[in-house]
Amino acid sequence: MAAAGNTSSKGGKTVLIVYAHPKPESFNGALLQKAIKELSSKGHNVIVSDLYKMKFDPLVRLEDFSGPSDVSKDVQEEVDKVEQADLVVFQFPLYWGSFPAILKGWMDRVIQVMSGFVRKTGFYKKGDLKVRGKRALLSFTTGSPSIPQESLEAMLLPMQVGTLNVVGFDVLLWQAPPQVSFGVEKGWDGGKGF
Amino acid sequence: MAAAGNTSSKGGKTVLIVYAHPKPESFNGALLQKAIKELSSKGHNVIVSDLYKMKFDPLVRLEDFSGPSDVSKDVQEEVDKVEQADLVVFQFPLYWGSFPAILKGWMDRVIQVMSGFVRKTGFYKKGDLKVRGKRALLSFTTGSPSIPQESLEAMLLPMQVGTLNVVGFDVLLWQAPPQVSFGVEKGWDGGKGF
Repeated sequence: MAAAGNTSSKGGKTVLIVYAHPKPESFNGALLQKAIKELSSKGHNVIVSDLYKMKFDPLVRLEDFSGPSDVSKDVQEEVDKVEQADLVVFQFPLYWGSFPAILKGWMDRVIQVMSGFVRKTGFYKKGDLKVRGKRALLSFTTGSPSIPQESLEAMLLPMQVGTLNVVGFDVLLWQAPPQVSFGVEKGWDGGKGF
Repeated sequence: MAAAGNTSSKGGKTVLIVYAHPKPESFNGALLQKAIKELSSKGHNVIVSDLYKMKFDPLVRLEDFSGPSDVSKDVQEEVDKVEQADLVVFQFPLYWGSFPAILKGWMDRVIQVMSGFVRKTGFYKKGDLKVRGKRALLSFTTGSPSIPQESLEAMLLPMQVGTLNVVGFDVLLWQAPPQVSFGVEKGWDGGKGF
């Protein structure tokens, strides 16, 4: 795993993994480590945003509405990582059919800046659609033993289409479907948290 | 507005408003105050969970997976409020087609306990479906000037059906549709945050 800020010297792609699980020995943690290993072995550069470890602040705050052109430092750091990346992978446990709160907060704050919402509305400064052409992939675990394809697509709509597509990500839907790990809480690590 | 824990002495219903906006002078704040005033004037008892003001912790943590039958104090307080309520109203700004992170965290932690997920999976203790028969209503603001009905229903599916319905809430869909305040960031409070 290369440090944030590095670019690959081997001509590979740069992959940002936004990881949202508090427990390294969880199934999610194992998937993260596997992804880092596989991608690195193929010559790609991997950057990880470990949201719990970073103590990423998920809350939109009053300050976000106050200045004329302010982007918080922690948000800017995440924007910079996305700008470097060719692909962004979101690795998380599905909570109530959606992102866990800490990852929802990443969307609320980081994606919000990247969306280029105009400042005249009082909500962030105008930016470019900096994510245009970048790819995004969801990889998540769920306790459900299975989910019908149609329900899965409906459930993921606000995330894949309403959020990531809207700001310009090329979400990997048809080229490569989201990576869904079913029934995880009943196995693997002795039931100690998925 | 009655304090949390009170029940109405006038035979009215008890309404819990879970409120998720950091700014009291926002449109959301005004809707909260209006709801408190109207409901109180009709003899109902109103309890408010002001999540930002309470500094509600939205993050599922390692401790949530550790003990055999532990429910965190802050989560138990929210469960107790829901148990008192006949109706739960969620008042929030729609961020990326869903709850803001702080309210998503309320779902991740409080609804999780109420869902009665069995402890043998390592995820909270077994409980009852304590919300059976209680009503729930979404009330939210959005910067969009309008959303087609079909898109709105698809967008709200994970929240209304996949979360609140699943744990037993009678979500007010057909009796009273969700309260949607469109185009809010362009008006009302000078564009200083919806």
